[in-house]
Amino acid sequence: MSSTEGKTITCKAAVAWEPGKPLSIEEIEVAPPRGHEVRIKIHYTGVCHTDAYTLSGKDPEGAFPIVLGHEGAGTVESIGEGVTNVKVGDHVVALYTPECRECKFCKSGKTNLCGKIRATQGKGVMPDGTSRFRAKGKDLLHFMGTSTFSQYTVVADISVVAITYDVSMEKTCLLGCGITTGYGAAVVTAGVENGSTVAVFGAGCVGLSVIQGAVKCGASKIIVVDVNDKKEEWGKRFGATHFVNPSKIGSQTIQEKLIEMTDGGLDYTFDCTGNVQVMRAALEACHKGWGQSIVIGVAAAGQEISTRPFQLVTGRVWKGCAFGGIKGRTQLPDLVRDYMEGKLKVDEFITHREPLGQINNAFDQMKVGDCIRCVVNMQ
Amino acid sequence: MSSTEGKTITCKAAVAWEPGKPLSIEEIEVAPPRGHEVRIKIHYTGVCHTDAYTLSGKDPEGAFPIVLGHEGAGTVESIGEGVTNVKVGDHVVALYTPECRECKFCKSGKTNLCGKIRATQGKGVMPDGTSRFRAKGKDLLHFMGTSTFSQYTVVADISVVAITYDVSMEKTCLLGCGITTGYGAAVVTAGVENGSTVAVFGAGCVGLSVIQGAVKCGASKIIVVDVNDKKEEWGKRFGATHFVNPSKIGSQTIQEKLIEMTDGGLDYTFDCTGNVQVMRAALEACHKGWGQSIVIGVAAAGQEISTRPFQLVTGRVWKGCAFGGIKGRTQLPDLVRDYMEGKLKVDEFITHREPLGQINNAFDQMKVGDCIRCVVNMQ
Repeated sequence: MSSTEGKTITCKAAVAWEPGKPLSIEEIEVAPPRGHEVRIKIHYTGVCHTDAYTLSGKDPEGAFPIVLGHEGAGTVESIGEGVTNVKVGDHVVALYTPECRECKFCKSGKTNLCGKIRATQGKGVMPDGTSRFRAKGKDLLHFMGTSTFSQYTVVADISVVAITYDVSMEKTCLLGCGITTGYGAAVVTAGVENGSTVAVFGAGCVGLSVIQGAVKCGASKIIVVDVNDKKEEWGKRFGATHFVNPSKIGSQTIQEKLIEMTDGGLDYTFDCTGNVQVMRAALEACHKGWGQSIVIGVAAAGQEISTRPFQLVTGRVWKGCAFGGIKGRTQLPDLVRDYMEGKLKVDEFITHREPLGQINNAFDQMKVGDCIRCVVNMQ
Repeated sequence: MSSTEGKTITCKAAVAWEPGKPLSIEEIEVAPPRGHEVRIKIHYTGVCHTDAYTLSGKDPEGAFPIVLGHEGAGTVESIGEGVTNVKVGDHVVALYTPECRECKFCKSGKTNLCGKIRATQGKGVMPDGTSRFRAKGKDLLHFMGTSTFSQYTVVADISVVAITYDVSMEKTCLLGCGITTGYGAAVVTAGVENGSTVAVFGAGCVGLSVIQGAVKCGASKIIVVDVNDKKEEWGKRFGATHFVNPSKIGSQTIQEKLIEMTDGGLDYTFDCTGNVQVMRAALEACHKGWGQSIVIGVAAAGQEISTRPFQLVTGRVWKGCAFGGIKGRTQLPDLVRDYMEGKLKVDEFITHREPLGQINNAFDQMKVGDCIRCVVNMQ
């Protein structure tokens, strides 16, 4: 039993008091976990575009004040009643896509989306409808069921997975979102086939991980599409075979260019940009008859995708996924094993590091082309 | 050898001289088949919305004068050099989706679209770039590689399949488009699973055939959505379990209504209307996590489908098919066998019959709600 068990912990967290303002480092109170909840000491967290999107105020569902962060790893400090899947001291990754194994979704065998706590998670509260965070006398909202920008956080037991002690949490935190999202999109959602052709739009953390997944599946041609020429080298480091900068192809559209490069279009394309025009291009660059386009990026509020229905009638498939289609509790340990066996690159993604006190720098770095991931040391 | 072999045949055909005008019954000359071509005596042809669409002039790729018709059955009158898949006297169905078994598409195992004669078929000529039809001293264009509104037509050998002599061609002609398109969409393209829920938007020939396919696959709930209340009885005759008239559900959208009726949405939805707003509703009525929507209807020129990408990111799949995803030469005989064994309804679709001389009546009947299919006796 830890000395803090059952007690409120006072620690530091980066609080988003209002949209469009930098995060503020505060002393916050983190209440003990209730039934089927887990309190985690967060060691490392990644900073992802989704955090920046909500902080910007552009997310119509974003509410404040809130503790952001959804890509975190840490150790279990204490557990609430009824928790059986993790124990105190376990090394864990927080899961913004939970896995209850009981709901219609989990039992379907067709999706990694879990419905059990969706409503409360969307509202920024724990499953019982309340918050575990307080600062300056106010309740703070939870974010994506994880809130990893705090030295301690509380999550539902279905929102956490224990992993081996043998891997640095500075690395495993990145499996909480970006790497898993891209890798899973290629391996699980698309099921890229041996010898097939793949185009990846946007070579950030997610896009580079799509490349990793495509390489694992034996893709014969992997084309990176990015407006940043520096991403050519990044793509090739992860196994891409070709690079196209769509701003440098003259009068051709990117779909025309890709169709020309692949004798009719790609077997699989992936949007990792969140730009709805890019999503359309990704679909239309698919091969007639069977090409599949997978939407991974999150579009801005109110944005819509469109195309001529003829694109679908002639055999292209438009689909998407969240968290790569990966079931966190069941499948994340496999990704950790792949990493340990040298089959999944993780270290290479970390281009920047910051202490908690400088977490706002991570948001600035994201806007710069040479940052793939900034990992924040929370302790 | 038939007495007409190698000679030009003069016969009657319904010619579309210009858009927006009724068809004109003319004496036309049908040249003998060249290499890898087949001349067919057409006994019966269905009349389909695609014929009406092109005749209307709204199809930007429609060209005139042309012999329309793409849902026909007949007997092989003569064959050109190199034809081995059918022989004189065979009962056949014309295939607007050919199957060469040699091209990248046919070999892929992933699509029924065949690329071999696509370019010339789209231009309204035979694979060698010329026409076999003449009337009033002018060449007439071919339509969809079939042109079944003529007593004799010439098609590529890959655009025809021989079927048993034991079935009336008045019935088998309908397997040339509508029935196969709907049935195949459910059975082949969607692969509807036992116990799953299905919604069919538009209960014409194609929609009713989707129902047949869904019944064969063991769907537990089949909802027909149609603005024509008479389609409730039609749907139930083919195995539908529920009916919704979207113009009579008050302030709810049809997607909201269907989601309510199915505890979260459908496993499979099918658009058989060609209306892009309906296509969107069909996608958004799908169950989160796994629902698939299949676009079958042909939209008007320039129309686009759209939705929020969130619909895909949360697991819905948007796809489509032509000719139901059925490979005509390989799979059409199976459908004929199903019909003979009482497993596939065909007779029930024929609500109207006309002689060739009255073919324009069939176009008028299509606009009336109680017409499913009008079959034209060509001889």
